[in-house]
Amino acid sequence: MVETRRQQIDDVASALFRQRGYAATSVREIARGVDLQGASLYAHVASKEALLWSIVWRVAERFRLAAEEALAGPGPSAARLAMLVRAHVEIVAGEREDAAVFLQDWRFLDEPHRTEIAARREAYEAVLRGLLVEGARDGSLRSLGGTVDAAVTGRAILAALNGIPAWYQPDGALDMVAVADAYLSIFMRGLQPPVVPATEEAHP
Amino acid sequence: MVETRRQQIDDVASALFRQRGYAATSVREIARGVDLQGASLYAHVASKEALLWSIVWRVAERFRLAAEEALAGPGPSAARLAMLVRAHVEIVAGEREDAAVFLQDWRFLDEPHRTEIAARREAYEAVLRGLLVEGARDGSLRSLGGTVDAAVTGRAILAALNGIPAWYQPDGALDMVAVADAYLSIFMRGLQPPVVPATEEAHP
Repeated sequence: MVETRRQQIDDVASALFRQRGYAATSVREIARGVDLQGASLYAHVASKEALLWSIVWRVAERFRLAAEEALAGPGPSAARLAMLVRAHVEIVAGEREDAAVFLQDWRFLDEPHRTEIAARREAYEAVLRGLLVEGARDGSLRSLGGTVDAAVTGRAILAALNGIPAWYQPDGALDMVAVADAYLSIFMRGLQPPVVPATEEAHP
Repeated sequence: MVETRRQQIDDVASALFRQRGYAATSVREIARGVDLQGASLYAHVASKEALLWSIVWRVAERFRLAAEEALAGPGPSAARLAMLVRAHVEIVAGEREDAAVFLQDWRFLDEPHRTEIAARREAYEAVLRGLLVEGARDGSLRSLGGTVDAAVTGRAILAALNGIPAWYQPDGALDMVAVADAYLSIFMRGLQPPVVPATEEAHP
């Protein structure tokens, strides 16, 4: 049952990091959350940073798989962008606490962990940018250029998605699929009203 | 010159809070950043929280003014939404460090400050939601409904905008107006390719 205990420790750490921030959370508080003495916690985990790494690494692996699947997916780029958005929402809404720690606290990792996660984040963003560029080429997405390039657009999409842990309620009215549908609708269609074709009468 | 010294302290505090997080930053480090002894800093500022409050309050005031101006602005809701987005970009890109502290660290405020900022954030979001609802009514924005409601859409827009301090470079290729243009283009038009009207030949 060591695995279960460890998972329990990760969950308590994740909740505390999210509520109070990584820097402000002590090993003693984490230990208290799982009914252990501070010293006994070290039988399960080497350090507070090891806990952070365990949480961040798990989330990073999920993002890596999501990007790989979107890259290998069928259909035009718009369809693969939609796959990536759906997988992203599943991570940030489905593992809200861990995802929030990943997004907020990865900067507190020690080296070489910090550099590894920075590289993974950049690689993920590059996959998104690639889909936007490829979509302009295959005609499934609009052409981006000038200041509305793939980099700025990718960052806007990622930041919008990464805001989900701050408000998503797992027991609320919206399930994860509905959230992904909503975000895709906003990203794809935008907020402009549909163009109403002029009627014959309008052109005398 | 007390005002200048105080501004200098705020700037150093803002940079440190942003880099290391509020909880991990000590008054001693802030003092060192302005060449003061820890104790001498208290001649200028009552506490670390007072510094955080000073930064957060200033940014909150700018957001309040932006919302007021958008509410009072001329034209249909889409034009007033654009005003709000432009003003928001000016704050998060133009005062990047302070805005990042506002966005990340307001939760560390003591009461009643924390509750006041939570209420102001909610009020700001309500203005954005109101513009989206009003835009559907006056026809300047598309009708939102179902899961793509004004609340979800407002949160997506705000999170996208609030990601700007993480990447914006004041001395980079994009000035603030270009960033606002880009975000508005993404929000308004979305990523769908423009519809090419079918030619006569396509309808035999």
